[in-house]
Amino acid sequence: MRVVDLIRRKRDSGELSREEIQHLITAYTAGEVPEYQMSAWLMAVVLRGMTRAEIGALTEAMLYSGRVLDFSDIPGCKVDKHSTGGVGDKPSLVIAPIVAAGGLYVPMISGRGLGHSGGTLDKLESIPGFNVNLSLAEFRRVLKTCGCALIGQTAEIAPADKKIYALRDVTGTVESPALICASIMSKKLAEGIDALVLDVKTGSGAFMKKTEDAVHLAELLVETGKRMGKNVVALITDMNQPLGHMTGNALEVAESIEVLNGGGPDDLRDLCLELAAWMFLLGKRVKTVEEGRKLSADLIAAGSAREKFREIVRLQGGDVSVIDDPRRLPRARQTLDVTSTVSGYIAATECEQFGVASVVLGGGREEKEDKIDPAVGLEFHKRIGDRVKRDEVLCTIHYNSDARLAEARKLIESAYKIEGEKPAKLPPLLYQVIGV
Amino acid sequence: MRVVDLIRRKRDSGELSREEIQHLITAYTAGEVPEYQMSAWLMAVVLRGMTRAEIGALTEAMLYSGRVLDFSDIPGCKVDKHSTGGVGDKPSLVIAPIVAAGGLYVPMISGRGLGHSGGTLDKLESIPGFNVNLSLAEFRRVLKTCGCALIGQTAEIAPADKKIYALRDVTGTVESPALICASIMSKKLAEGIDALVLDVKTGSGAFMKKTEDAVHLAELLVETGKRMGKNVVALITDMNQPLGHMTGNALEVAESIEVLNGGGPDDLRDLCLELAAWMFLLGKRVKTVEEGRKLSADLIAAGSAREKFREIVRLQGGDVSVIDDPRRLPRARQTLDVTSTVSGYIAATECEQFGVASVVLGGGREEKEDKIDPAVGLEFHKRIGDRVKRDEVLCTIHYNSDARLAEARKLIESAYKIEGEKPAKLPPLLYQVIGV
Repeated sequence: MRVVDLIRRKRDSGELSREEIQHLITAYTAGEVPEYQMSAWLMAVVLRGMTRAEIGALTEAMLYSGRVLDFSDIPGCKVDKHSTGGVGDKPSLVIAPIVAAGGLYVPMISGRGLGHSGGTLDKLESIPGFNVNLSLAEFRRVLKTCGCALIGQTAEIAPADKKIYALRDVTGTVESPALICASIMSKKLAEGIDALVLDVKTGSGAFMKKTEDAVHLAELLVETGKRMGKNVVALITDMNQPLGHMTGNALEVAESIEVLNGGGPDDLRDLCLELAAWMFLLGKRVKTVEEGRKLSADLIAAGSAREKFREIVRLQGGDVSVIDDPRRLPRARQTLDVTSTVSGYIAATECEQFGVASVVLGGGREEKEDKIDPAVGLEFHKRIGDRVKRDEVLCTIHYNSDARLAEARKLIESAYKIEGEKPAKLPPLLYQVIGV
Repeated sequence: MRVVDLIRRKRDSGELSREEIQHLITAYTAGEVPEYQMSAWLMAVVLRGMTRAEIGALTEAMLYSGRVLDFSDIPGCKVDKHSTGGVGDKPSLVIAPIVAAGGLYVPMISGRGLGHSGGTLDKLESIPGFNVNLSLAEFRRVLKTCGCALIGQTAEIAPADKKIYALRDVTGTVESPALICASIMSKKLAEGIDALVLDVKTGSGAFMKKTEDAVHLAELLVETGKRMGKNVVALITDMNQPLGHMTGNALEVAESIEVLNGGGPDDLRDLCLELAAWMFLLGKRVKTVEEGRKLSADLIAAGSAREKFREIVRLQGGDVSVIDDPRRLPRARQTLDVTSTVSGYIAATECEQFGVASVVLGGGREEKEDKIDPAVGLEFHKRIGDRVKRDEVLCTIHYNSDARLAEARKLIESAYKIEGEKPAKLPPLLYQVIGV
């Protein structure tokens, strides 16, 4: 089996066998296939696509390139959630405690911010002392103790994905549903879970701007998960505007605590209840989604979700006092209000620009080595459909440095589309569910 | 300018500017752009193509990655010919002496056999002592002395092409008209020529099996040459069967000497006269192609083309006695006749199989390091349209080792398509001329 022949076959729209894909990934991970052959193959995949069988084989090869966790000794259903990312996308912080409080296990391996989107690990690290770099043994111990643990990808988990992802990043081969699917699923399936709820975002603040692209990716993810014997559904949810009122790492933790305290913005709370409900359903804790929503709301109302969050923070070394007093989280020294220059209704937002503005302020990374500022971020006062008067505040910038403030402000100002008429239709929170 | 952005642009069918291509090629040749980025870009080029302007810029960048020869101190027109390669494709050996004998200069930098096709350098090296590895100073001296010199690509000529070609070979990125065009033209334009005649082969023994593909490549080559201020035409010629009666290095030299002696097979002689005629026309030695054909035939009849060949061989260290007695060339120890199992007419040949058979016998390389056997090859007794009786000899194999004889024989036997009726149409020698 010559690698050049596998490259040529994919280039000519041919299909590779499970064995061929297995060989390619294993040999590449072992350093036996050079980077230049892998990148040529990846580009051919981006432009020619992969069949469902090929995506399954690729996911499997990447999954078994490392350790696949086995929590079968822990009695009870292991279930996780994964989001494709967006702006203000913080449900993981809320639903992991809800679902663990409900008696299921949530072994969650998350990522960092990517491009304009935030990352769960960065958000958690805004809690002083919170350690996301647990060893797999510590991960197991925390999970067993409190039903939930939240860590980053270790060196043992899907090393093929780590190596391929780094190569894709510098060779223009990120944008492929097949490669995105294999990357997500190889990591999630390594968690030793029984079920997975996928939150596939669509809209101006998502990676998949078009709903049909989000649906396509969701179908690939669900099918690939099912091939591997997992119970998987995907919710196509809206990302045409930020989720909740906050974006920025500490600001999002504070807002998540609000939801765990029974408050918080409606859209954020509703999506958390929906996602948690599906996790309860797939984890066989409830019989209907409706029952799952009610259970989730009850766990918040009773305070047990918040207490579960406190337990997780404590077990992972974080300062639990922030839960009772979120003002103890890192806070930006200055704020600036961005006001409207016209009167009218918010018709739409270029939501990705809010994410980019947050990165520009230091809340995300432009280069891999950048240190992030947990305190900075944006606070949104208006949503699509809201009436706004001239000089009324649209958004408050939380910042620590003037350096790129003007740039961030410009991005925010130009992100709002304000019209004379109220928009005929507001974007729904949930478009559809794939895999049921 | 980030290389990953250039890759992404090409991936998305965008166009790169002259400066961007220049930067990419210069930085890659200098080792500043890693192989894995170059191979991803090359795959994107294979699948997305390049505009004419991009091909021009790529050719220019590759050309100026090395030395561009300047023979302006030599009075007279410098003209060359390049063939895209085939089976029995030996006109260079005949027309270089004809055109030099006619008073033009032919500074020819040639290649080695590639895949199933032979190479001028390998053929010349079957003449004992013939040195194709002249330095550029020696090249100039021989050219100045006798009007023609025949060498291989030196390290100074288009080093970007050398490096890119090696990468394309192992990354499945050979098959791109844009990249083939830039590779050919960057080397040919480095020769310091005023004019170039391209012999673009089409048919079952060519790299471009379909005439439309050959025409497309020819158009790219001609346009790229003209952009660089050169006088260029391309002849689309037939390669549905071997050219002449012989394939194999020494056998082809012997057949070329036959033509220089006024004999040789009609098709080979006619194509040599045609190509030489166009070189004379582009080199302003004659006013019409017809006049060029006559001049070429006269130079053969007068013996001056053969004497020019003798001079070249002598100046490049070869044994001139082979010209008077071609039996002194390396000869295979054994021959085997391949006969027809049926009676009928030759309707077509899978011509590439003859080339592969010749490689299998040792006449070409399967791996870069293989040593070739100059003596082996095939002698063809029948052409398309010829009548053949059962048990009549189709082809004689000249071989030195039994090792893979059966494999070669099978390739040859299965290459002939014999039918009951005489084919309605024979393939023409010349399909069309591009660039006039």
